[in-house]
Amino acid sequence: MKIRVVIPNSSSEFTATQVAERKKAAFTGTEVDVVCLPHGPVSIEYAWDEALAAPYILEVARKTEEEGYDAVTVDCAMDPSLRAVREQVSIPVTSGGESSFLVAMALGTKFSVVTVLESTAKVIRENLQKYGFTSRVASVRFANVPVLDLVDEEKAAQAILVEAKKAIADDGAEVIVLGCTGMSPLARKLQQELGVPVVDPAAASIKLAEALAAMGLAHSKAAYLTPPDKEIR
Amino acid sequence: MKIRVVIPNSSSEFTATQVAERKKAAFTGTEVDVVCLPHGPVSIEYAWDEALAAPYILEVARKTEEEGYDAVTVDCAMDPSLRAVREQVSIPVTSGGESSFLVAMALGTKFSVVTVLESTAKVIRENLQKYGFTSRVASVRFANVPVLDLVDEEKAAQAILVEAKKAIADDGAEVIVLGCTGMSPLARKLQQELGVPVVDPAAASIKLAEALAAMGLAHSKAAYLTPPDKEIR
Amino acid sequence: MKIRVVIPNSSSEFTATQVAERKKAAFTGTEVDVVCLPHGPVSIEYAWDEALAAPYILEVARKTEEEGYDAVTVDCAMDPSLRAVREQVSIPVTSGGESSFLVAMALGTKFSVVTVLESTAKVIRENLQKYGFTSRVASVRFANVPVLDLVDEEKAAQAILVEAKKAIADDGAEVIVLGCTGMSPLARKLQQELGVPVVDPAAASIKLAEALAAMGLAHSKAAYLTPPDKEIR
Amino acid sequence: MKIRVVIPNSSSEFTATQVAERKKAAFTGTEVDVVCLPHGPVSIEYAWDEALAAPYILEVARKTEEEGYDAVTVDCAMDPSLRAVREQVSIPVTSGGESSFLVAMALGTKFSVVTVLESTAKVIRENLQKYGFTSRVASVRFANVPVLDLVDEEKAAQAILVEAKKAIADDGAEVIVLGCTGMSPLARKLQQELGVPVVDPAAASIKLAEALAAMGLAHSKAAYLTPPDKEIR
Amino acid sequence: MKIRVVIPNSSSEFTATQVAERKKAAFTGTEVDVVCLPHGPVSIEYAWDEALAAPYILEVARKTEEEGYDAVTVDCAMDPSLRAVREQVSIPVTSGGESSFLVAMALGTKFSVVTVLESTAKVIRENLQKYGFTSRVASVRFANVPVLDLVDEEKAAQAILVEAKKAIADDGAEVIVLGCTGMSPLARKLQQELGVPVVDPAAASIKLAEALAAMGLAHSKAAYLTPPDKEIR
Amino acid sequence: MKIRVVIPNSSSEFTATQVAERKKAAFTGTEVDVVCLPHGPVSIEYAWDEALAAPYILEVARKTEEEGYDAVTVDCAMDPSLRAVREQVSIPVTSGGESSFLVAMALGTKFSVVTVLESTAKVIRENLQKYGFTSRVASVRFANVPVLDLVDEEKAAQAILVEAKKAIADDGAEVIVLGCTGMSPLARKLQQELGVPVVDPAAASIKLAEALAAMGLAHSKAAYLTPPDKEIR
Repeated sequence: MKIRVVIPNSSSEFTATQVAERKKAAFTGTEVDVVCLPHGPVSIEYAWDEALAAPYILEVARKTEEEGYDAVTVDCAMDPSLRAVREQVSIPVTSGGESSFLVAMALGTKFSVVTVLESTAKVIRENLQKYGFTSRVASVRFANVPVLDLVDEEKAAQAILVEAKKAIADDGAEVIVLGCTGMSPLARKLQQELGVPVVDPAAASIKLAEALAAMGLAHSKAAYLTPPDKEIR
Repeated sequence: MKIRVVIPNSSSEFTATQVAERKKAAFTGTEVDVVCLPHGPVSIEYAWDEALAAPYILEVARKTEEEGYDAVTVDCAMDPSLRAVREQVSIPVTSGGESSFLVAMALGTKFSVVTVLESTAKVIRENLQKYGFTSRVASVRFANVPVLDLVDEEKAAQAILVEAKKAIADDGAEVIVLGCTGMSPLARKLQQELGVPVVDPAAASIKLAEALAAMGLAHSKAAYLTPPDKEIR
Repeated sequence: MKIRVVIPNSSSEFTATQVAERKKAAFTGTEVDVVCLPHGPVSIEYAWDEALAAPYILEVARKTEEEGYDAVTVDCAMDPSLRAVREQVSIPVTSGGESSFLVAMALGTKFSVVTVLESTAKVIRENLQKYGFTSRVASVRFANVPVLDLVDEEKAAQAILVEAKKAIADDGAEVIVLGCTGMSPLARKLQQELGVPVVDPAAASIKLAEALAAMGLAHSKAAYLTPPDKEIR
Repeated sequence: MKIRVVIPNSSSEFTATQVAERKKAAFTGTEVDVVCLPHGPVSIEYAWDEALAAPYILEVARKTEEEGYDAVTVDCAMDPSLRAVREQVSIPVTSGGESSFLVAMALGTKFSVVTVLESTAKVIRENLQKYGFTSRVASVRFANVPVLDLVDEEKAAQAILVEAKKAIADDGAEVIVLGCTGMSPLARKLQQELGVPVVDPAAASIKLAEALAAMGLAHSKAAYLTPPDKEIR
Repeated sequence: MKIRVVIPNSSSEFTATQVAERKKAAFTGTEVDVVCLPHGPVSIEYAWDEALAAPYILEVARKTEEEGYDAVTVDCAMDPSLRAVREQVSIPVTSGGESSFLVAMALGTKFSVVTVLESTAKVIRENLQKYGFTSRVASVRFANVPVLDLVDEEKAAQAILVEAKKAIADDGAEVIVLGCTGMSPLARKLQQELGVPVVDPAAASIKLAEALAAMGLAHSKAAYLTPPDKEIR
Repeated sequence: MKIRVVIPNSSSEFTATQVAERKKAAFTGTEVDVVCLPHGPVSIEYAWDEALAAPYILEVARKTEEEGYDAVTVDCAMDPSLRAVREQVSIPVTSGGESSFLVAMALGTKFSVVTVLESTAKVIRENLQKYGFTSRVASVRFANVPVLDLVDEEKAAQAILVEAKKAIADDGAEVIVLGCTGMSPLARKLQQELGVPVVDPAAASIKLAEALAAMGLAHSKAAYLTPPDKEIR
């Protein structure tokens, strides 16, 4: 099985730091390929970033299908352009936010998302409402760490830990979802310290993609209708 | 007061047919300016269209604010890039879908949206869920008429009428919202034939923009945080 | 356009203090007329007050339509007798609570209402549930200031400010709705101090009435059925 | 135990037909007294009727408490003035609609209400939304029989039966709630014919009143705050 | 009328302490019989306990119907095996949790449950979600007192009181539901101290059983279908 | 990785027909072991069946953990004893219903469940409400085929197909979930005929178990608290 992970920003430096983790997340036998966008913002933290990245996400997704991949993951907890990508391609499409929320709901009755910035938290809250999952959400918190500062892992871990602890103690979270796909190593550490499951959206979207492809499932074309050829000026 | 109506497609021909209606929708004393996008799809009917139009919607919205307009409307029932535009500008931003849903809820307990295509209906349903309005929605129906075919007004009217009648008789709709901004003349005709209020999203978003600007209100920057300067590659 | 504002209490003294603000809220070209009830409680703060005022609200609304007004607003954040008035008349009927909630939802994802008394808060919470808006509500708070004490504007402003700040900091409010129509001057001051939009229900209901009348819209008679002649003993 | 049943209309003729049924609904040892209003509409079918009856419902409820009754029921499926009455008195207050919905939810997962008129159905739907019960409601249907025509029992029964059968077959109702308190004899007949439980709101509100009074429970004064003395002009 | 109260644990000692309270809860004329299970855990505090008790609850319920009782109550706030029992028998079945939630909703708009252990709270929260009542719930709290320690009434009362006060002050509870059926004497004391209604689930389920039986109502067999004879190995 | 599939009925004949399908559902490298219960009903179709099977499901799950399995699946779309099993063991526990609903929500906005019997449909609807997924559900339908009759694959397929088509055409389903774990071969056939994704709950729960175990995740012990040692009489 061949899965392409699309990191929907234009930062090849950031992407380089993520490759090993994404390969590690897959089952033996799954070939994982990680790419970022040719153009667009260097990080996705605002709806504004999403809007600017949108055409390039579509472009990369289209190529992914053409090149014969079995599935594609949009590697971001904000699920940018998810509906548009699913309209465009027929191979399974998963995404960091959606996949991690689904996994979290298999692990407890209430989960909290701990993400990077307030702007990201706003988008994630809106997505949770759109997906109909709010009755399962304890809170969406943010650590006030921009995505590209996640490379200072120690400091990021500390800030995330503080919010995750509040989510558990004050909001009733039984499961923590990390609200950014750049935090895989953190997920493991946090889980040990917190004593509750910590879901890494990058891993979750790869595992879900593998599972869908293996089951012969892809998103419904009755839900995500294929656009006809249309004039683009 | 100066309001700019942004028709988020690239069809200047379609836009030309809408100008008179938009001006008519405003109060005396409101100056209305109607533009379309410099690039992008010729109509917005799929999430895919939205994604391709997104960067140009942002560009036009930014210029609108710079040129001193008091408010901007995104003239589309699918509310494309609404969150991104609100992040970007500080003047009031309204949009066809959201505005018409709000107006409809002032007129009855249950409304139905009748839109053009199934793909559009899917996006509108998702928006209604995202906005938390589903308990007020009787149904979202579509007439199977592409946006640019709305110029054949007679035929479009007939198809919309059929669905609107079903919405009232079968789904319990008390109010009809037209799910496309290219139907202003239709709204008036349909209202007479149906005997229930018919909300035109193009007019609704202009009236809401006027009302907000007059009250000194604009969207909350605590909801739509301003993105910092960021590298766009 | 001629709009009548019905302050649904019997206090002509209070009403006198509101006239200038209501006229100011309207567009040039809108004629605004402000009246209170001939009988009933001197303020509307409890469901009990609403019940006693109900027949007089209906009486004034009926006359308003007979006298050729284009719209009527029930000038109270508790929306007293709103359904009954809409059953009775065919001109657009707006109301302080409903209108301000709708406006607030165009400005942010979560709003809080800050009202005068706990009893008022209870009614407003019930209305928000009835309207299906609770997923958009951060909180309903009260400042413990009876309506008629709002004339001591300084003190009222202080108490409201405290609660509004808590709504923003603790409850996640992005927009503040004032939960009483006697606070128009306060709305402007609070907005400056709080840095988020503050919606005045008195102004909101006038702007919505103007917008509806201008669009040729009135509440659906399929939602608010006209009562037949009936014996009243 | 002494319970007063308040039929919130002014029709002493209708009331006379209901007395025997109400007494029959009570346990041995419960003294039941049935009254109607001194003034107001002869039937309660519209919000408009409710508004006109409101002050008299309050008056009768106040006297009921003064005369030492242990509980009072507002004998109407539209629950008119329920909040106002609870603000006013401290003895338990039950009502036809609310009581029957609660009983229905002890009998199945989905219930339908079959009421008299479309206008009544609209109010009942709004109440169900206000009470937060919509996830348990299959449908609210109406038989198009005005309240005072219920005396022609045969014809009413037929019309109600047709709608109840549709509720079960088409809407998934497992329990039927009669949406009018003038149908007690019908409830028994319908239950036999339909094979599912049929809840009579008149009986339900009496049984709930008995249960509350026996348990030493009355509505919370933290929910329904007592109004202070206030000038009524 | 003959009602059997089934305490769904195997502790005859605990059961002995409850008999007098259950008899006191009934109307004169109702014969109340209290039994516990022949086998199973000595208390029901976890879903695990429920699972082990399930076959014995069914066995006792079946016998109750065979012996001609008019109704049966499953005397536990966790509502163990409620659906299964209703599938099995045709006489009315009530249960501590469900009955007390229904009664609470007749007394205020928001109630809190105060139960014994965190594990119990988790099950009760899940039930409230299953019943569709969450919009009426302020919170579910626990006092950290195992069921069998309720015999030290003074200490239990103190712990429950602390949580009930927090529910009222911090969570907005207007009504308190005790989340365990072993607390009847406490209910009365707490109500006096708290000033809001306190619902005893043991009493509530008996009163509801009496009411249903008296009205000729039992759960819908369209909701709880009767299982056919089936091989049990 | 070693996963045990627990078919929660006592029919070893039925179980024998399922083994090959379960093994086929797993990734290479996953060892799958399929067992049924030592005692209990021969099929799980009613809550009553669940109640009788409950103690044996716990027993088998406990042994599974003791024997060193990495995960366990409760192979039934009714999710029997799911909470109890999660309280008891620490290895990941998945189940047919929950897993397939989660997978379905990754494939479309609205799914329908097509199950075997009306009684099963009732339990599944209740579970969907308990899980908070109802806003994503188009319908729950049943084909009126008892579980053990699924061996007549042709006839079952026909009955399921009819209901699945109605779910898509009449209810708006974009994805079909099979509401029984004995239908794996059917899932593939139906998907081809229907043109929308068809989720097999047996496969879904195995894939989810594999994914959880591989990610080092198990259900939260803060959600499913471990019961203490307790006297079982």
